Amino acid sequence: MEVTNKYIVIKHHIDGAPQESDFELKTEAFSLSAEPGKNEVIVKNLYLSIDPYQLNRMKNQSSGQLAMDFAGAIIPGKPITTFGVGRVIASGNSEFNKDELVSGILSWGEYSIVKEVGGMLRKVDTMGFPISYHVGILGFSGLTAYAGFFEVCKPKKGEKVFVSAASGSVGSLVGQYAKLFGCYVVGCAGSPKKVDLLKQKLGFDEAFNYKEETDLKATLKRYFPDGIDIYFDNVGAEMLEAAIENMKPFGRVAACGVIAEYTDKGRRASLDMVHVVYKSITIQGFLVGDQMNVYKNFLSATIEPLRTGKLHVLEDISRGVESTPSAFVGLFRGDNVGKKLVQVAED
Amino acid sequence: MEVTNKYIVIKHHIDGAPQESDFELKTEAFSLSAEPGKNEVIVKNLYLSIDPYQLNRMKNQSSGQLAMDFAGAIIPGKPITTFGVGRVIASGNSEFNKDELVSGILSWGEYSIVKEVGGMLRKVDTMGFPISYHVGILGFSGLTAYAGFFEVCKPKKGEKVFVSAASGSVGSLVGQYAKLFGCYVVGCAGSPKKVDLLKQKLGFDEAFNYKEETDLKATLKRYFPDGIDIYFDNVGAEMLEAAIENMKPFGRVAACGVIAEYTDKGRRASLDMVHVVYKSITIQGFLVGDQMNVYKNFLSATIEPLRTGKLHVLEDISRGVESTPSAFVGLFRGDNVGKKLVQVAED
Repeated sequence: MEVTNKYIVIKHHIDGAPQESDFELKTEAFSLSAEPGKNEVIVKNLYLSIDPYQLNRMKNQSSGQLAMDFAGAIIPGKPITTFGVGRVIASGNSEFNKDELVSGILSWGEYSIVKEVGGMLRKVDTMGFPISYHVGILGFSGLTAYAGFFEVCKPKKGEKVFVSAASGSVGSLVGQYAKLFGCYVVGCAGSPKKVDLLKQKLGFDEAFNYKEETDLKATLKRYFPDGIDIYFDNVGAEMLEAAIENMKPFGRVAACGVIAEYTDKGRRASLDMVHVVYKSITIQGFLVGDQMNVYKNFLSATIEPLRTGKLHVLEDISRGVESTPSAFVGLFRGDNVGKKLVQVAED
Repeated sequence: MEVTNKYIVIKHHIDGAPQESDFELKTEAFSLSAEPGKNEVIVKNLYLSIDPYQLNRMKNQSSGQLAMDFAGAIIPGKPITTFGVGRVIASGNSEFNKDELVSGILSWGEYSIVKEVGGMLRKVDTMGFPISYHVGILGFSGLTAYAGFFEVCKPKKGEKVFVSAASGSVGSLVGQYAKLFGCYVVGCAGSPKKVDLLKQKLGFDEAFNYKEETDLKATLKRYFPDGIDIYFDNVGAEMLEAAIENMKPFGRVAACGVIAEYTDKGRRASLDMVHVVYKSITIQGFLVGDQMNVYKNFLSATIEPLRTGKLHVLEDISRGVESTPSAFVGLFRGDNVGKKLVQVAED
């Protein structure tokens, strides 16, 4: 059986902040049968993960650094891969059967063909949670937050934690993990509404709107008069500079994302390395792909508070494949609150 | 018995590169007897350690960060403390006896009174090595190099190591430890003579004169076509930026010193944090004072190669207390080759 598959491509490489006009909706005739003898699975996409790092994959890769093994360069005119959840429609792989729910590397479209299935797909046990949770909190956003906080930052109870982009997919979970663990947590975000959410719903001790602050170094001094033990950095640039100057001795910075640089590669963090040396600060970059070994620990630490409502889920869901470009572009304007998803179809 | 003690002070706080005119020679009547009942030791200074970080202690401390517990602010007109080796002349402390050789916190002068002796002095067993070695290679320079390389960088055999200020007191040892351990080592220094020394005498695989390079990023790419595993950073600023861009995945940076910033606090390292995240780089500042627990390991790793001549000692010795300001000022012009010392007196 054949259908028409709608999918999104970039028209050209993107430099700077993305615009909706950088994207294009395409249609193609799409076979819903797996080709006999081929190790491929046909998936009907349900939810797609929309993440800032994907912008780096859309850039001209001549600098050679921005595409990774598990998330290669995005080529103009070609399908855009992303993490997502869908239902198997047809399978040429004996591990996957029709109608099974799977998560893995799908594409910005209504349907995906997953070729060379090994490692690219896994079955989803919903455990009674909404399907969308398996893209965000129980997917890579959750694992990134968990591993970044516990494995990279190595927190101790009572430590003072600062989280930037704290209402985002990862930051909102880092702050909650830190609170559940017994830390003092301050977050920053980009609107009064987000700040309220952090304090009222997610239980952050304090939160501030960075757009209202003119001297971030002084702001952090105000919220952390005795200094910061842990900074979970999703943004880079001035916020990282200010955090470094406010770190305590033996402070740790988990460098998870650099959204400031993604849209402007000149917006670097101009670090006062004297602080780094004199306060024995550690700055550690990490990728979630290297943290799969803690996946089980992550699940056991997450499922219980999720069931009991101690861990709150922030989802920001757009509907329909056509909404994908605007969903993505909005990330860089701070439109999203929590995990940005596109629901491509009802299950 | 009383003598005249010559000693050096700063006339005023120093901002920027130090000049000899910032210093002043003073004389004072100095008693060679320990005051009865006081826990103090009178020491005749022999060798004084001259180190770049002391400049930070000479600055106006209003920023509050640059003086440390073990090395407080240097006050205009007052004695300048430093690490050194000397002979006990008189002692009010039962642990120390006349004529014993001691190392510890002495001052830029001919004599020191060490008050509240606990932790400030220790007896020196020369183990047959020259006295000066106990200020440098067997003192904090050696421990800094050893702990910074082995404890902070956690090297593996065969890894590619880059060392800046490689002919300096710490860098020259880091490179040699790395070679003895089985790494590939490239160093940079500031003159052709130093570069020759690194390659011919110290056994570095490669070395270059950074003053002859116009694009440090390209330079490092040339010496490390497959990337850097470990960067031992003594300088900060552009060199750190270039190293970060040339690191391999899981690369480690030991941030030991920031000589570029010491004389110009605006000369920061403008880091491309995308590299730090995407290559899972760790940047770790450290202070030798936190590494005393590896002192025994350091000695056992150092004494044997030192005796057998596998570890070379670079010392740059000025003579007479009057030479201390020029010895210190010269550090920031790169005058010294290896550990800078002032020999105040013959033993």
